[in-house]
Amino acid sequence: MLAAAAACALLIGAAHAEGPYRNPDNKSKDDPGEGTYPVPYKKPVVSEIAAALQRIRGYMEESTPSRVVRGDGTPVTDFRTPVADAVLAASHSDFGITVYEMGVVHAGMLKAREATGDKRFTDFTARHFQFFADKMPYFRAQEDRFKLARKNSFSRFLDPRSLDDAGSMCAAMMRARQAGVGPDLSAMIATCGKWVSKQQYRLADGTLARQRPQASSLWADDMYMGVPALAELGRMTGDRAYFDDAVKNVLQMSAYMFNPQLGIYTHGWNANNPDAPRFYWARANGWAVLTMSDLLDVLPKDHPGYPKVLDQLRKTLRGIAELQSGTGLWHQMIDRNDSYLETSASAMFVYVIAHAVNQGWVNPATYGSIAQAGWAGLSTRINDKGQVEGTCVGTTFASDQVYYYNRPTSTAALHGYGPTLLAGAEMIKLMGNPAFDIEHRVRTYHYVPKGGQTDYREHH
Amino acid sequence: MLAAAAACALLIGAAHAEGPYRNPDNKSKDDPGEGTYPVPYKKPVVSEIAAALQRIRGYMEESTPSRVVRGDGTPVTDFRTPVADAVLAASHSDFGITVYEMGVVHAGMLKAREATGDKRFTDFTARHFQFFADKMPYFRAQEDRFKLARKNSFSRFLDPRSLDDAGSMCAAMMRARQAGVGPDLSAMIATCGKWVSKQQYRLADGTLARQRPQASSLWADDMYMGVPALAELGRMTGDRAYFDDAVKNVLQMSAYMFNPQLGIYTHGWNANNPDAPRFYWARANGWAVLTMSDLLDVLPKDHPGYPKVLDQLRKTLRGIAELQSGTGLWHQMIDRNDSYLETSASAMFVYVIAHAVNQGWVNPATYGSIAQAGWAGLSTRINDKGQVEGTCVGTTFASDQVYYYNRPTSTAALHGYGPTLLAGAEMIKLMGNPAFDIEHRVRTYHYVPKGGQTDYREHH
Amino acid sequence: MLAAAAACALLIGAAHAEGPYRNPDNKSKDDPGEGTYPVPYKKPVVSEIAAALQRIRGYMEESTPSRVVRGDGTPVTDFRTPVADAVLAASHSDFGITVYEMGVVHAGMLKAREATGDKRFTDFTARHFQFFADKMPYFRAQEDRFKLARKNSFSRFLDPRSLDDAGSMCAAMMRARQAGVGPDLSAMIATCGKWVSKQQYRLADGTLARQRPQASSLWADDMYMGVPALAELGRMTGDRAYFDDAVKNVLQMSAYMFNPQLGIYTHGWNANNPDAPRFYWARANGWAVLTMSDLLDVLPKDHPGYPKVLDQLRKTLRGIAELQSGTGLWHQMIDRNDSYLETSASAMFVYVIAHAVNQGWVNPATYGSIAQAGWAGLSTRINDKGQVEGTCVGTTFASDQVYYYNRPTSTAALHGYGPTLLAGAEMIKLMGNPAFDIEHRVRTYHYVPKGGQTDYREHH
Repeated sequence: MLAAAAACALLIGAAHAEGPYRNPDNKSKDDPGEGTYPVPYKKPVVSEIAAALQRIRGYMEESTPSRVVRGDGTPVTDFRTPVADAVLAASHSDFGITVYEMGVVHAGMLKAREATGDKRFTDFTARHFQFFADKMPYFRAQEDRFKLARKNSFSRFLDPRSLDDAGSMCAAMMRARQAGVGPDLSAMIATCGKWVSKQQYRLADGTLARQRPQASSLWADDMYMGVPALAELGRMTGDRAYFDDAVKNVLQMSAYMFNPQLGIYTHGWNANNPDAPRFYWARANGWAVLTMSDLLDVLPKDHPGYPKVLDQLRKTLRGIAELQSGTGLWHQMIDRNDSYLETSASAMFVYVIAHAVNQGWVNPATYGSIAQAGWAGLSTRINDKGQVEGTCVGTTFASDQVYYYNRPTSTAALHGYGPTLLAGAEMIKLMGNPAFDIEHRVRTYHYVPKGGQTDYREHH
Repeated sequence: MLAAAAACALLIGAAHAEGPYRNPDNKSKDDPGEGTYPVPYKKPVVSEIAAALQRIRGYMEESTPSRVVRGDGTPVTDFRTPVADAVLAASHSDFGITVYEMGVVHAGMLKAREATGDKRFTDFTARHFQFFADKMPYFRAQEDRFKLARKNSFSRFLDPRSLDDAGSMCAAMMRARQAGVGPDLSAMIATCGKWVSKQQYRLADGTLARQRPQASSLWADDMYMGVPALAELGRMTGDRAYFDDAVKNVLQMSAYMFNPQLGIYTHGWNANNPDAPRFYWARANGWAVLTMSDLLDVLPKDHPGYPKVLDQLRKTLRGIAELQSGTGLWHQMIDRNDSYLETSASAMFVYVIAHAVNQGWVNPATYGSIAQAGWAGLSTRINDKGQVEGTCVGTTFASDQVYYYNRPTSTAALHGYGPTLLAGAEMIKLMGNPAFDIEHRVRTYHYVPKGGQTDYREHH
Repeated sequence: MLAAAAACALLIGAAHAEGPYRNPDNKSKDDPGEGTYPVPYKKPVVSEIAAALQRIRGYMEESTPSRVVRGDGTPVTDFRTPVADAVLAASHSDFGITVYEMGVVHAGMLKAREATGDKRFTDFTARHFQFFADKMPYFRAQEDRFKLARKNSFSRFLDPRSLDDAGSMCAAMMRARQAGVGPDLSAMIATCGKWVSKQQYRLADGTLARQRPQASSLWADDMYMGVPALAELGRMTGDRAYFDDAVKNVLQMSAYMFNPQLGIYTHGWNANNPDAPRFYWARANGWAVLTMSDLLDVLPKDHPGYPKVLDQLRKTLRGIAELQSGTGLWHQMIDRNDSYLETSASAMFVYVIAHAVNQGWVNPATYGSIAQAGWAGLSTRINDKGQVEGTCVGTTFASDQVYYYNRPTSTAALHGYGPTLLAGAEMIKLMGNPAFDIEHRVRTYHYVPKGGQTDYREHH
């Protein structure tokens, strides 16, 4: 019977082997009005969140060597003269230290430092970035001599060819710079910033685009792969043209890919088939809201695009929040409850919802509870080793549900780590936010803005 | 294999342990065009419905003592001088005889008497109400002397503080009065009627509201907790101002909480977050349609609000009907087929749909079949003891799906009993309604208005 | 555990006993980015499709005797003088050779011949139609003498009484005539054509209707039961009035039964309850799109209705495509993922989507992939014997979900065979269509119109 239940649970996409859970905030052990939960439904405990973040940090540290080795695995020690087979040491978890997903990890480490005060989070970022600064000349020399192109371990930095190569890490470098973490990476920022702002393929109207899978395609993911870098360029340089471009991209991508009826984004759009059937992939929606949130963090409040981006974020958060599952997590296809529960998207949603509450972009009422419920689900995905489970592996903009539904999940999918760090860090802030009270009443939670007097006197 | 299926059934929320069922109305035992059903799909048999209602009545009788006892359980016999620890005798089922849910039970008993002619249904109501009349002076004296406040067993009657305290039972008392059942409860009606019509907190626009969970909140449940009492006050007194208030509340609550795109109500609305994500809790929708139905029952047809309320009821019934599950029951979150199948809401829907057909508010075509299918599901929830299974326990207006999805169900949840009595009673009337024929053809049922000639001659 | 999984699979409606499948087009056997699939997700192989079509053809041949026998099963050999108990020989699969479903089988055989060049497909049609021509005088004489009415095996041809009796087979006869297959059936075409165009009950506005289940009802199925015959009459006679009637029926039926918000059709509509709750039965949607596709195949491009029908087809295909399940198949209730996966509707969708791509009515981008994914699912429903599994049996226009959800499936449901033949034939054409490339990249498929240059150089 238990085996059967487990099998069913697998089929419906639930990863939580533990549980059912009883809410420890309800001190009445025999309360017939209290049920059990598939996830630990309770007020999040800051020390538990912090411990989870530390486990992830530890796992990330051990999984991301910053070393150069030869093809046979022996360390490169002489960095004066490049050799053709010098590469970055492999990660046992298959985590690349130059990939866009790692840019999100750095964003998460910076926020975790902010939320916990623990410098070890940013030490991670400083180690990576120092290594980049140190070894950039070596890999450039290797490239000059051997023309390895995509096989050069620093190819993304030397010769970016896509938003994936450039935007996320570029934004991370500028954020670290702003936070005083790591060395001066101006030259690297110049290269990646130029790619995003000047060299990436665009539609005629200026929207950041790709030439795949069709000759001219938009990806909702590219909001994140492009806009935060543009926004950080705006902050770093003070040149408002970057903000204009960032805002324009958010609004235009939304015009192409946002379904206002459902309040969610389709994964992508092809110019040759503008009215095509849509695929509401959860992670694409995660990138969309993370982008708007990141942009609003740095966009001047007097920029004419500010209220428009804020409005678009609010609409999207409502749509997403309404699709949260009964486990607090969201489904791989966000509108399909028979697709599995996916971690990376859920983590981005938890982060952005909690952040939007903390920034005052949305009211804590309702949204505070939704973030908390999301964390209840998300916390079950962080295992004892510090791995993040249940994340969909790298996924292209595809054109059929069989592909999307059946993408495997893996702890080696780096996409889940940065968002989970962000989510946990923001939840810590949420728990300490003085703008509202978190009331545990009649077996659930109410986030009540300070000054808004409630009355439970009436309640039996 | 069976265990596995059972486990799965549990997971998907189906309570019916019996079945699969074959339709006995199809006399061809080997008909390859006939399948089996998870519920007894057949033309409802009046004697079977009546027997189910009797089982519920019996269970309600034995579960609702109307006696006063002391803290140690010994009966109070001297009612001249109050003692501090005198309370209502406990129900082994935890059914309160003064609570709003019991008001719905009385409504059900009155309808069951009407539908079956069996006086034992109203004897139940008469017993409770006579007890209220008899013991009111005692508990008032107890309160005067000991100031027990909420701990006084008659606190709702002595000092109502919420719509839950007042509206539903108040409406029941007026209905019993109209039907000549029980003693004169004018004084009690005056107290509860005053609370609903004059004292309850309202929005500035006059909509009945609460100060929880936020400082100013609407609950769709409060349509029922307020409007039927207002409507009965209108009928009892002839003062149309009560009708005006009742109509205004239905229309304004609908403006705040009805989603016209989906045809259903969100559970509640907070003034501090008017565009918040919505939670389509089934029982809240049950209260909404039951309210409109109750109002139309007594609202003068020439009242300017009559067509507006009728239109709103029709829109809602369409939305609800379109969300009926393949078992005839509805889901806890009415728009989510991965939430469990919930009894109390299903019962309210069956009642109101059948009643709307019987009253001529909607056409029997389609709606007759939907009520019948609903009863097929609902009948599986009435067990041999007369308990109603699968009802969600008391549930607050919350802000996350984890809470709603995981509310426990219990036979002690009184919310399911009144609606099931109403549903069964109305189904008996539906079966005897002379306005249409119920045709069992090609393995299903068609409710055909009299005079509407069909032609199956063409059918092979 | 496996039993549990199997039980769950049954409950969620999946028929594929085999699998999970790994995509053989991905040559990297250990690719961590590649998952497994519940259906054979791969580029369809023409020889495999053709083999599946042959299996179906073989099963259809052996299951459809064209012989006349007496009540005791002995062959009728003397066709000069009719006997009262002469009937068509029974099929061991219960397949009628005169029924509307067989009209679709003939349509499928004609397309399969076209796609494969194998004359055996049309030999099937020629055999049936020659038998009709040969035996028509005999059954007419039987009718004249014995007045058997509906018990006459040729009653549909002698005395059609419904669109089911007439339209589908009528269209098939005209298509065979156009293709030069079988004998001259002018007299039979005249009878069935007259029924469809002149004698069938209609609404006052001319929409083809029925007098069941209500006095005046529309069935979305009747688009197919009526319109292709009208369209073929237009082609055969050159009389544009037939095209006008065909177009009018598509557009008016769509006005009554199409939900533009969801992009799908409700099963039917009753004049006495025009705003009734809707039932989105998948097969009804199959008939709708098959009808529009068939009409566009013969409608002159300069007919004023052409762009309107094309627009309606496009809207519907988008709605349907967005509801495809993660197995490539569609659900019995097309908008309900907890209803079973149904074959006949899925087959019609695969056919029409592939055909729309091949005809240039929709862009291959997205739609090509969707057809392919649909075939991946559909192919699992064709068993080794050539039977088509998982088809819902004959289903009336009903008024409750319990009926629809619990309709049995059977390999004896002839409704699945014609559509599967059509789908396979069209998939063969799709695979050979020179207008686009089918690119297998990053583990999925992209249908890229020729000349649309993509760029994967950027991709790591």
